[in-house]
Amino acid sequence: MPDCIFCRIIKGEIKSDIIFRDDRAVAFPDVYPKAPVHILIVPIEHIPSVAELDEAKAAICAHMVTVANRLAREQGISESGYRLVTNRGPDAGQAVLHLHMHLIGGKEMGDIA
Amino acid sequence: MPDCIFCRIIKGEIKSDIIFRDDRAVAFPDVYPKAPVHILIVPIEHIPSVAELDEAKAAICAHMVTVANRLAREQGISESGYRLVTNRGPDAGQAVLHLHMHLIGGKEMGDIA
Repeated sequence: MPDCIFCRIIKGEIKSDIIFRDDRAVAFPDVYPKAPVHILIVPIEHIPSVAELDEAKAAICAHMVTVANRLAREQGISESGYRLVTNRGPDAGQAVLHLHMHLIGGKEMGDIA
Repeated sequence: MPDCIFCRIIKGEIKSDIIFRDDRAVAFPDVYPKAPVHILIVPIEHIPSVAELDEAKAAICAHMVTVANRLAREQGISESGYRLVTNRGPDAGQAVLHLHMHLIGGKEMGDIA
């Protein structure tokens, strides 16, 4: 999607500190971090949100979770704890219409909503 | 796990309003709701948290997400928006050591951390 910020980051058109990349997903820091560790895990395929994942497409979620677990270990927050979040739609405050999972940690977190 | 609250709910030893069940997952309302819709999606297998999901085990996450999407549609929050959250460890406030995904919606939500 030419106008999608995350697609442009994935293609290298917008500079970001890519900390993970394979053939299905990339990860980079959130530009508005809510915690000492705040990384976005993003599928390379442009999928608007989690709501578009049917049984056939949902395998990408399993992969994103294993990437998040790996990054949590690398960031040293696997034992202290971390939160994985994905937002869909306006009530949740989804800011970019390209599916992404937040990996957040490095502090005691507050309420989930 | 005999002492696990969620295992006991799954087995029917603790009463809960089960709103979804198949051979891999169940869903029931959170007893301390943070929003008008606050449902937990829980694998039947006792897995302590998301951190224990390696590539082989992570398929359960894909299934939990498709269950969450279905429940979001049934609850009428698919378009208004919803948040999916899983907490791992003390910093995230994981309260029950059995993997669970929060489905939250029905109001404008605040920060994710």
